Amino acid sequence: MTDTLASPGVAATVARLREQVCALHAELVRYGLVVWTAGNVSARVPGHDLMVIKPSGVSYDDLTPQTMVLCDLHGTPVEGDLTPSSDTAAHAHVYRTMPGVGGVVHTHSTYASAWAARAEPIPCVLTAMSDEFGGDIPIGPFSLIGDESIGRGVVETLAGSRSPAVIMQNHGVFTIGADARAAVKAAVMCEDVARTVHLARQLGDTVPIPQAEIDSLWDRYQNVYGQR
Amino acid sequence: MTDTLASPGVAATVARLREQVCALHAELVRYGLVVWTAGNVSARVPGHDLMVIKPSGVSYDDLTPQTMVLCDLHGTPVEGDLTPSSDTAAHAHVYRTMPGVGGVVHTHSTYASAWAARAEPIPCVLTAMSDEFGGDIPIGPFSLIGDESIGRGVVETLAGSRSPAVIMQNHGVFTIGADARAAVKAAVMCEDVARTVHLARQLGDTVPIPQAEIDSLWDRYQNVYGQR
Amino acid sequence: MTDTLASPGVAATVARLREQVCALHAELVRYGLVVWTAGNVSARVPGHDLMVIKPSGVSYDDLTPQTMVLCDLHGTPVEGDLTPSSDTAAHAHVYRTMPGVGGVVHTHSTYASAWAARAEPIPCVLTAMSDEFGGDIPIGPFSLIGDESIGRGVVETLAGSRSPAVIMQNHGVFTIGADARAAVKAAVMCEDVARTVHLARQLGDTVPIPQAEIDSLWDRYQNVYGQR
Amino acid sequence: MTDTLASPGVAATVARLREQVCALHAELVRYGLVVWTAGNVSARVPGHDLMVIKPSGVSYDDLTPQTMVLCDLHGTPVEGDLTPSSDTAAHAHVYRTMPGVGGVVHTHSTYASAWAARAEPIPCVLTAMSDEFGGDIPIGPFSLIGDESIGRGVVETLAGSRSPAVIMQNHGVFTIGADARAAVKAAVMCEDVARTVHLARQLGDTVPIPQAEIDSLWDRYQNVYGQR
Repeated sequence: MTDTLASPGVAATVARLREQVCALHAELVRYGLVVWTAGNVSARVPGHDLMVIKPSGVSYDDLTPQTMVLCDLHGTPVEGDLTPSSDTAAHAHVYRTMPGVGGVVHTHSTYASAWAARAEPIPCVLTAMSDEFGGDIPIGPFSLIGDESIGRGVVETLAGSRSPAVIMQNHGVFTIGADARAAVKAAVMCEDVARTVHLARQLGDTVPIPQAEIDSLWDRYQNVYGQR
Repeated sequence: MTDTLASPGVAATVARLREQVCALHAELVRYGLVVWTAGNVSARVPGHDLMVIKPSGVSYDDLTPQTMVLCDLHGTPVEGDLTPSSDTAAHAHVYRTMPGVGGVVHTHSTYASAWAARAEPIPCVLTAMSDEFGGDIPIGPFSLIGDESIGRGVVETLAGSRSPAVIMQNHGVFTIGADARAAVKAAVMCEDVARTVHLARQLGDTVPIPQAEIDSLWDRYQNVYGQR
Repeated sequence: MTDTLASPGVAATVARLREQVCALHAELVRYGLVVWTAGNVSARVPGHDLMVIKPSGVSYDDLTPQTMVLCDLHGTPVEGDLTPSSDTAAHAHVYRTMPGVGGVVHTHSTYASAWAARAEPIPCVLTAMSDEFGGDIPIGPFSLIGDESIGRGVVETLAGSRSPAVIMQNHGVFTIGADARAAVKAAVMCEDVARTVHLARQLGDTVPIPQAEIDSLWDRYQNVYGQR
Repeated sequence: MTDTLASPGVAATVARLREQVCALHAELVRYGLVVWTAGNVSARVPGHDLMVIKPSGVSYDDLTPQTMVLCDLHGTPVEGDLTPSSDTAAHAHVYRTMPGVGGVVHTHSTYASAWAARAEPIPCVLTAMSDEFGGDIPIGPFSLIGDESIGRGVVETLAGSRSPAVIMQNHGVFTIGADARAAVKAAVMCEDVARTVHLARQLGDTVPIPQAEIDSLWDRYQNVYGQR
């Protein structure tokens, strides 16, 4: 591992990811997805069995690129003195199991966690949900925190879904993406639709979107939306 | 088209509208009507078959006057390299069909989108709603995104209403105005009354406002309110 | 009137009130009680039949001390070119009828306006409500905007209550105070308790506070709280 | 007392606590737990029968380290001219009775106060709640403000609970901690879970967490979470 980190290319990549992951934590704050020290973002170091993740129990105000913790994909720190997030084992399990995933985010965002406390998936009744999630946002199992149970629940639940977000029962949200920014986007959109569908349901029944229309919206968003 | 854009008067107008439309996007953020890259504002170039609109999938932080996309009224870009909003065809249809409209706004603002998910119009039970909307805010049909279907639904729904806002089923809000600022105002007020009426209905029945009073309030607001 | 305004003492008082009323409008924005150009604050010029109030339909960003409008207590401007708030007649009626009132505030703040749409008074189930309002916050009658009807409804409703706030049916909130700052405080506290009691009622019945305890809390707050 | 304060070590500790308690009040504002002048934070002066607390009825914008009031543990000011918070007797009672407590916070935060108005404890249905509170957040008795009744209710309720937060009926929240920062954290987390569980309950039944799992989560959070 020491040899790997001594390579100038890897060192530059890790430095860039420390900057990016630190900055993305500020997006969690800006969008109101986290309070105090809860929540975390990680990024895989592409091509290496390494990840960069938030330190445990450190305030968002005190995060700097240097406080981000570099770990191997079993969650063991390989640089620095800080203890990584207590969700590190879950992130590491996702990276080991899902090779296409480059970023993972975890939050207790309010509305999504309210669905979590009822263990109820969010039904796809919005075009914005069809775009980003391609259907319902599924519920993952209850697990204790600290070991790989959560990671296994995340991976197993996402395996049966187009959704980059899973709502873990009684807990909160995990999202994945091709990189950390995409995972943060999924976390932001997950809370946004969790809130809108919650409110919609408060005053009556929602109108379902036919599956063919969901498919069509999802396909367009994945392939046409944005800049090429 | 090249000839038109080469005219100094048109170039100055387009430059001014790029500034204004860019600045109005910041109002959507300030009032919490949009998250991530969702939502868009456009303005007609008065006297020309041209409009200025947000680029597709670009963050609000990264918007500048130069990133706004100048399109014809079929949604085809006529300057620059960026792809316009995926709602461009809807905006363009509104401008082609409603000559008095100078600005269009689209958002997925939270409370309005909750009414959208139930396909339920917002009843006029507030004086502020009588002022700005002159009655209920109507529901438009479900449509796929990307072609003119949404634009047709917007125009057909607004044709039967005083309201400058329409809530599109399962989707979100479109608003119109004499200029882009008026359309942004309608989007802000639409979310404001969507939220207040939502909350009112949570705890019981609302008190209707008689139609004659709605008419009186609307007339005063259109003709007396503000500076002359 | 010209003679009165030429007196150095009056001119200095008016200048000070223009500063204060302008600054207090920013408190309405900070506490989320207003959107766009809705809402207004006024202050009586002590010892004179004059008041300072927001201009009609001007954005909060564009307010300066000089844009505040000096009116007589029938709502007629006596200085400057701007049209005063369309609620000016209501404010003026309050000042003419209630000599102890030095400030008036009007908002469409969200939760209070939700109670307004149901024409339902807010029951006193919080110690903070006992402190500031001394009991329930009452409902005033529906009135059209622009003439003195609203002012009469405000005065008649507050006459039977300790509350410095009244919720006008289908409309919003009017608050009074010994000065404009006290009226703004009442507007902030009104929305705060409107929101808390709304939420409390969503999940079941609230526990009433016995009248003797309300009286005791109100007396202490009026006489002991704060700096002497 | 004068002798104690003349000791350089005590003076330095008091100066440091004035800074800290003043800064922590800004956290109450940042997290939206307080409006206008409501709410307060205090800190014990370790090893002395002294505490530092917010002055009564002073705006958060006007707080400085020097405006914090130094009191003995019966709530009598021992330095300066300002009157301490009207909740001072409650804070003082907690410090006298619970020697392990170094900080106390009081707020009327919105969602927690909604539970207070129903006198309903918050059930532990979130892992974040298990972590911080180790079970339900309990309800304390209704008390008048100003004397030690509230302090007694706080102490008696917390005696039977792992929770550092108690929701006082019809009133708001009191939290305790080893220091003032820990008490502020408990106040932030209390409102966060009060909101999430409120929302969860709006749309149906929540899923309980078995007691053994709550115990396990609480134990890990107290002993493993954060930096060592």
